Parts: sequence; structure tokens; C-alpha cells
Amino acid sequence: MGARAAAQGIEDEVKIDRAPTTLLREGASEAGDDTQMRARFEKMIRAAQDEICAAISELDGKPFHEDAWTRPGGGGGISRVLQDGNVFEKAGVNVSVVYGQMPPEAYRAATGEEGASKEMIPFFAAGISSVMHPHNPMAPTVHFNYRYFETDAPKGAAGAPRAWWFGGGTDLTPSYIFDEDVSYFHQTLKDTCDKHDKDFYPKFKQWADDYFMIKHRGERRGVGGVFFDDMNDRSKDDLLAFATDMAGAVVPAYVPLVAKHKDDEFTPEQRAWQQMRRGRYVEFNLVYDRGTTFGLKTGGRIESILMSLPRYCEFQYDHNPAPGSREADALDAFKNPRTWCA
Amino acid sequence: MGARAAAQGIEDEVKIDRAPTTLLREGASEAGDDTQMRARFEKMIRAAQDEICAAISELDGKPFHEDAWTRPGGGGGISRVLQDGNVFEKAGVNVSVVYGQMPPEAYRAATGEEGASKEMIPFFAAGISSVMHPHNPMAPTVHFNYRYFETDAPKGAAGAPRAWWFGGGTDLTPSYIFDEDVSYFHQTLKDTCDKHDKDFYPKFKQWADDYFMIKHRGERRGVGGVFFDDMNDRSKDDLLAFATDMAGAVVPAYVPLVAKHKDDEFTPEQRAWQQMRRGRYVEFNLVYDRGTTFGLKTGGRIESILMSLPRYCEFQYDHNPAPGSREADALDAFKNPRTWCA
Repeated sequence: MGARAAAQGIEDEVKIDRAPTTLLREGASEAGDDTQMRARFEKMIRAAQDEICAAISELDGKPFHEDAWTRPGGGGGISRVLQDGNVFEKAGVNVSVVYGQMPPEAYRAATGEEGASKEMIPFFAAGISSVMHPHNPMAPTVHFNYRYFETDAPKGAAGAPRAWWFGGGTDLTPSYIFDEDVSYFHQTLKDTCDKHDKDFYPKFKQWADDYFMIKHRGERRGVGGVFFDDMNDRSKDDLLAFATDMAGAVVPAYVPLVAKHKDDEFTPEQRAWQQMRRGRYVEFNLVYDRGTTFGLKTGGRIESILMSLPRYCEFQYDHNPAPGSREADALDAFKNPRTWCA
Repeated sequence: MGARAAAQGIEDEVKIDRAPTTLLREGASEAGDDTQMRARFEKMIRAAQDEICAAISELDGKPFHEDAWTRPGGGGGISRVLQDGNVFEKAGVNVSVVYGQMPPEAYRAATGEEGASKEMIPFFAAGISSVMHPHNPMAPTVHFNYRYFETDAPKGAAGAPRAWWFGGGTDLTPSYIFDEDVSYFHQTLKDTCDKHDKDFYPKFKQWADDYFMIKHRGERRGVGGVFFDDMNDRSKDDLLAFATDMAGAVVPAYVPLVAKHKDDEFTPEQRAWQQMRRGRYVEFNLVYDRGTTFGLKTGGRIESILMSLPRYCEFQYDHNPAPGSREADALDAFKNPRTWCA
């Protein structure tokens, strides 16, 4: 075990030539119902990875590169990256299965349980996460992440987990706002949410507007979408179905927007604005994003975690768009979230 | 007061046309000895800002742009930035004077005092900080920061502060290692340290090697230099003299290295490696740097705090230099700190 990983309690990953049938611990699929959800969730995210990578690769004309790894005690991941493509500067889709130890504060924050335990809580997490950055400044960046979390049964006790929850979200980060595109994106997410609960979209849209905030700037990284966390107020089957549909909505919500704008003309100034917004994306991810900061601190595979960072970005001192410009309109949308669909 | 600043307890800055004679609160210079150190430290950092900006501007051929601001309740700053210059992509030198409120944990960490107070501690901080990123991949980036900190006397008590300390450091971040340059840089810092205490350089060199670590990568951002914090184990006069000399060593330690390499030939691949290292610089500053993370959380002037970020940078997936290459040599120096002077 390397010094970095040992300090953080997760074993070093071991690169493997080919993704295995399952990243779960051996024998896991023969245990009870809860383990079944682990297996069903892994199956869902791996199918979503296949489907989404196929659609993006078809649009780009270039294949994804795949890296797979496992850890000696169980768990692992599959990262697929398309870098320096024809349409995308960088597009990455990760799936990972982690058996780790979570600080008790994190457990309490997630579950709302009081308890003053100081012991680390063993957890299981499986998820798919992705960020895709196109070249063209008129084509937006997308991010999505769907995850299933369990904390292990207490030591010595067999059977059910102590707590479990689902989380996820899909959000759009354009450099320039095309109203009809953003409305289409939000509407596609809303239609998917509505199939499960009419309250989901308004609640999760607000949550995304709150979550994707670059607090030190008082602006969001983009125009949001949906975000939710710590969800366990209905059956696992219902939540799996919801996560499955949301992952399935990524291609229809996003791919048409890139197809439409991938060959748009643009000026060097528009490229510079895009690069500056990519810098803001970096600020958000490294300072605030829970997945990123959690991953960096718990010894996850760094290259997979930071796959989300854009291929190129810029940091200009005190850049302020001209009043009335398209850049000013975009900044206004990032500062004052709009209603994108009824 | 804006929502962002109000939430963080520091008032919004007010842009002013011209830097005032002092950024201290009015009448401050007439109080006792401790206030005198505030005034003396401000004078020192403002003289250092003038001297260093003059030297950099002469090398570059382009002037610095200046922004000055104050805060209604006292304090303020002067940021000087040279962006898109002939030699430098971005060079910034800030001075700032802050009257703020610090969480008790931060106070205890700095002073070593036990105490269980939960009240915010009023503090005074004055400092100079700077990062300069040249265009040429053979010319290194430098950072330095010298600061003086006081916590106010308890409410109702007049006179001396409860605690005070000095901190600072100067460190070098090359993309390519030229042994003689790095040795010269370290030797210049060592000579300056040695004038004050022979123990300083070895101790502060080690501290820099520990501090400028990108923990999630197990590598440093560069080849270090010196770093120290929480220093109050000798007289304020002695520590002011040390900080003054260290700020004075920046120009002789750094400017010759850029002068030597600013017109070196380089390949697109070498430029890409530099840009990737600039990305690592961003990772360090946004995730670990105390000044940056403290500034972002306490409501400092964002553009001044993030002036340290490079003008351009890149994030490549899973980049590994070829064995035996100059890039591999640089990465080795970042992973395994070397002895640069006897």
C-alpha cells in the first residue's frame, strides 16, 4: 500500500487489463436483499456508461480510452476518457465501487442521526460520474452523477445496512446562453422527473441552483439542472428506477445541443470567454464539489476524480463583461437563476 | 454590505482612485508600541511592493495596473497586476491590511493556547503576497508572502494584543530544472536567512518542502524555498528585520533566472508540460494553500486572492513523463526534495 493511500485508509488501486464482470466483493451477490441492490445498481451504471460513451463517441468520431482497476479488499472502477477528440476537448465517464471508511460527521450529516460515535463508519458507495467539455464555445459542458450509498452493518452484526441513500444530478454549463437549448435541457430532465414524482423537478432544480454555487464569487458555474442527495424516503426499487431513468435522460437532454453547435463559428474573444468560464468550473470543482473534495481526501483514484477538470482553462484578473453583451447575459443567468420550463 | 461579505463578517471593499498613505484605521499610529509595529510593517511591505514591481516591470517592459480599495471600518489593499506582458503571462503583487474575525480554532492553532472559547477573535493582519508566471517554459514561477498577525485585546481591555506572530516564505516553481538556477535561488535565500539565524534555512527549507505539497498527488508544486509561520519566539524588531531582508531577497534571487531564460527556445511539447504544471499549481492553491482558502472563506477581495492563479493552464488525463526525460527529472525533484545548497 502506498503512503498516500495508507494515510487515508483506502488501499492502492491495481490496474487491470480488462474490466471484470463485477467490481463487488466476491460472493457479494449471494448475500441478502441489500447486496442485491448493490449488484443491481452496479449493473445499471455500467449499462449507462456503455450507452452514454457509445453516443458521445458516435458524435465525436473518436473512441474512448478505458482504464480499469480493482482494490485488493474489493471495489474498483472503470474510467473512460475521450481526450483531444474532434468535438470534445475532454469527456470522461467513470463508474466506481468503493468500500471505505467514513468519518462519523459525514455519516451524521448524511443520515440526520444524532449519535456521538467517534469511530469511522465502514461504507459502500457505487456511482457513475461524468463531465464532458466540447471544443466549441457555443456547445455546453454537461456533468452528471448518480450514486448509491450504504453504511455497513455494525461490527459483528450480519444482514441489513445501518443506512442507505441515493443521490445524483445532471447539470449544464454553457459559456453562451441559447434560451431554447437550456429550456429543452431542463424540460427533458423535468419530463423524466415528472414520471416519478411531480414534486421532484421543482425541488431538485432549486437544489441544483443552491449546490452549483461558487460561493466566493456569488455566481453559479452554469445554468443548473437537477441535484439531490441523501434520498431514502421511498423504496429502493423506486429510487433505482428514478436513477435509471435520469441516467437514461442524459443522452437525449445533452447530445442534441452539442450536435447543433459543434461547428458554430466563433471569435477568439468568444473562445477566451469560454476558457475563463472553464476556469470558474475548476474553482467550483476544487473548492466546493463534494465528490471531488471527498475523493481527494479519501484516497480515491486521482486521475479519475480529476478527469472532470477541463482540458484547457484561463484565469484573467478582474474580467468583467461589457454591459449588454452576450457574456453579460450569461453571467446574469449564472447569478440569477431563471425559470427554464413551466 | 453585499450578501457574500455580510455572510462572512468582513465588509465589502470600496474601490478608491489612489492608494492612501496608510491602510490602517485612523488614529492608529498614535496608539502604543504594538500599533507602531502595524505601521512599521505596512511601511515595509509597501516599500517592498514598489521595489519588486519596479524590477519586474523593467524586465518586462510593461507597467503594472494598480487597484486600491479600503473598507469602511478600516483596512484595505493595493493590488498590482501585470497581465499579458512581454515576459510575464501574469504577475501580481498585493499588499493588504485586514481587520477581521477569526474562528477560535484558527486562533488556537496559531498560538497553541488551549482555551475553549467559542467567540470569534478579532484579528489584524497585514501582508504582501505575490505570484509571477512568465511565458517561457524555461523561466520559473515564483511566489512569496510575508505577513504580520495580531489578535486584538479582549473586549473592553486597552493596550497590548493577546497574541502576535510573523509568517512568510518564498518558493520557486520551475517546469524544467536547471540545477545551477535552483541552487542559486536557494543559496540567495539561505544567505539572507543566515544573517539572522543559522538554523533558519534548514528549518524553513524543510517546512517549505512539507507545506507546498499537493497531498493527493504525493508531489510538490515546485522545488520549494523557505516557509515559516506562527513565529513569535524572538523580538518583534528582530522578526521585522528578518521579514524585511527576506522580501528584499526576492529580486536578487528571482529576477536573474527569468532574465536568463525569458528568450529560450522551446517546443510545443515543452509548452504543454509547463501548462500541465500550471494546472498543478491551481490544484495546490485552491485545495491546500492556507492564504487562498482562508481568503475565500473570510470574504477577502476575490480578484486579489486569485491573482495567484496562472493566466493559462491545462489538465491532461493521466499524463506520465517518459522515463529519462527532462520532464521526468522535474517530477522526481517535486516528489523527492533535493539538497540545493550546502
